[in-house]
Amino acid sequence: GADHSYSLTTGTTSAELLRKLNEQRDIIALMEIKMKEMKNTIRQLRVNEARLQEELRERDRLISANTIIKRKL
Amino acid sequence: GADHSYSLTTGTTSAELLRKLNEQRDIIALMEIKMKEMKNTIRQLRVNEARLQEELRERDRLISANTIIKRKL
Repeated sequence: GADHSYSLTTGTTSAELLRKLNEQRDIIALMEIKMKEMKNTIRQLRVNEARLQEELRERDRLISANTIIKRKL
Repeated sequence: GADHSYSLTTGTTSAELLRKLNEQRDIIALMEIKMKEMKNTIRQLRVNEARLQEELRERDRLISANTIIKRKL
């Protein structure tokens, strides 16, 4: 009677909740993978940035050395 | 009796499942914020990279112009 249908309803709800819990767990797992990829991308971009800045400094040293040579000439 | 304790157990489980669902929802919301921040960081780093590469090209043009001047001198 009432108890039986209550149990059924509760059971259905629990199954539904479990399904949603598993869906969310999958979403979290995917987001963690995505975040790990983004962290790697950020690290790589920072390495690139440091390399480019070092190359810029080298060029600036070359340019100021050239300027000194031109002044001496 | 048995029905009552089953309902209680089921009720407890549902409450527990709901609590976990809400915890996971909070985690997902935090991860979404974090991912949005990381996306902004990546976009900013790519803008910086393009700017640095453009500056490098300018320096290279200056250097090769200087080299031509030196050869003429």
